[in-house]
Amino acid sequence: MVRASRPHGFVSDFNTRSRDPKALRPQALKPLRLRYDLAMALTKIGILISGRGSNMQSIARACATAEIPAEVSVVISNRADAAGLEWARGHGIDTAVFPHKDFENRKAHDGAIVGRLAEAGADWVCLAGYMRLLSSVLIDAYPNRILNIHPSLLPSFPGLHGQRDAFEYGVAVSGCTVHLVDLELDHGPIVVQRTVAVEGCADAEELAGRILVEEHRAYPEALKKLLTKPWSIGGRRIAFGCGAD
Amino acid sequence: MVRASRPHGFVSDFNTRSRDPKALRPQALKPLRLRYDLAMALTKIGILISGRGSNMQSIARACATAEIPAEVSVVISNRADAAGLEWARGHGIDTAVFPHKDFENRKAHDGAIVGRLAEAGADWVCLAGYMRLLSSVLIDAYPNRILNIHPSLLPSFPGLHGQRDAFEYGVAVSGCTVHLVDLELDHGPIVVQRTVAVEGCADAEELAGRILVEEHRAYPEALKKLLTKPWSIGGRRIAFGCGAD
Repeated sequence: MVRASRPHGFVSDFNTRSRDPKALRPQALKPLRLRYDLAMALTKIGILISGRGSNMQSIARACATAEIPAEVSVVISNRADAAGLEWARGHGIDTAVFPHKDFENRKAHDGAIVGRLAEAGADWVCLAGYMRLLSSVLIDAYPNRILNIHPSLLPSFPGLHGQRDAFEYGVAVSGCTVHLVDLELDHGPIVVQRTVAVEGCADAEELAGRILVEEHRAYPEALKKLLTKPWSIGGRRIAFGCGAD
Repeated sequence: MVRASRPHGFVSDFNTRSRDPKALRPQALKPLRLRYDLAMALTKIGILISGRGSNMQSIARACATAEIPAEVSVVISNRADAAGLEWARGHGIDTAVFPHKDFENRKAHDGAIVGRLAEAGADWVCLAGYMRLLSSVLIDAYPNRILNIHPSLLPSFPGLHGQRDAFEYGVAVSGCTVHLVDLELDHGPIVVQRTVAVEGCADAEELAGRILVEEHRAYPEALKKLLTKPWSIGGRRIAFGCGAD
C-alpha cells in the first residue's frame, strides 16, 4: 500500500533548483538567501519518519533557507498517522506511507521504501525518529549515505531511551549524535555531536527538551559538512577536508 | 617504607588558615585574593599520584589562590620517582612514598596510605594520575570522599586509554569526568564533566593535550562544588543545592 501526496499547484520559485520538475513545491518554505552557486545541483534527500518528525522539519527549513545545498524530495513513513506527514504535505513535499505490517518481512518493507526513494531521486536518506531497524536492503542501496540522529553522546546510551538513561546515570553532560547508519544500532561513523549541560534539569523530560534543541541544529550541521566538504572514512573515523564553511 | 618531607622553615602566611601547625608551608603558593571567610576551616585534601601529577598541581594552585576553601595536606605516591613529589616538596607540601611492592597485598598497601592520610588530617582524597586500583580499605575509610579524574566523558571509554579509545572510535566530542570513587573502575557518581572538540586533532596525543587543559579546570571546579554547595546522592545522581558560586 502506497499513499503519496502530489503537488497540487505550481508556483515559480527561484530556490527550486531541482533537476526534477515533480519536486517543484507550491508552498515550499521561502529562501532567506542564496549561499550556494545556482549552478550547483541540489542534493535530494529522502526522510524517513514514524512520528511528528521535528528533525525532518529542521532539515527541510535548512534546505529552504539554503543553509545546506539540498532539497527534501520525499518523506516516507511506516505509519499513516505520523503527524510529520501532514506538515510535509503542507509544505509541498511529496510523501509516501508504507505500513510495515503490510509486508512479509523487513527486507520486503525496505525494498518498497528503496523503490520510492529511487523514484524521488534521493541521493541521501535521513532517519528522523524512524522507529524501525534497517535491513541490509536499505543499507546496501545507500552505502554511507544514510544518516541517523540519536539523543545521547554515542557510544554512551544507545537504544530507545538515550535521554532517560543518561539522566539516570547522572552524567553532567549529554547531547546528541548524527551518525552514518550501519547494520548495528546507533553505531556507525559519527559526523556531528552537540552537547548540553544536565545541571538544572528536574527530570529526563527536561533534559530531552534541551537535547532536542541541539538535535535541530546538529542535523543541518551534519548535512552541511557532508555535502560541502570532501570527506573520507578511515577505520570508523570520518575525516573532513577543506570546503565551504 | 615511608619517606615524608618536612617543612624546613616557617614563614608567616595569612592564607595558611590551618588547624594544624604542621601544615604551615614555608614556600606555599601565595594567595591572589581571599574569597572565603577567614573563619571557615579549610578542608584538608590528600592527593595520590604515580607520575608528574599535573592535576595535583592544578588542585594545589586552586587552593593557594583560594578558588577552593581547601589546602593540600599531603601528597602520597606509590612510586618514589614520581616527578610530582618534587614539585610538591618544592611548594612546601608534605609528601610520602609507599611503594606497592613493599606490601603483601593491595589492602595492606591501602592501609598504610589510609594511616598517612589520617596523620595529615585529610578530609578528602583526590586521585591525580594514581595508577593503582583502590581496595575497600581506602573506599571504606573515605566513603564518598574520594575523587578521581578520567580523560573521557564517562561512561564512554573507561580504562587506561580513554583518549586513544575515543579518538579511534571517531567521536566528535570528548572530554573529562571528575567522579566519586567506588569499587568499580571509572564508575562512581559524576561531579563535573567538561568537553572538548575532537575536530582538527591529528592524533590521539593532540586530543589528550586538549583534554588535559580541561582536566586542570575540571578538578578545581568539582572540589569547589562539593566543598561550597550542599549536595546529596540519589541513585547514582549527585544533586547540588544552593551555595557559593
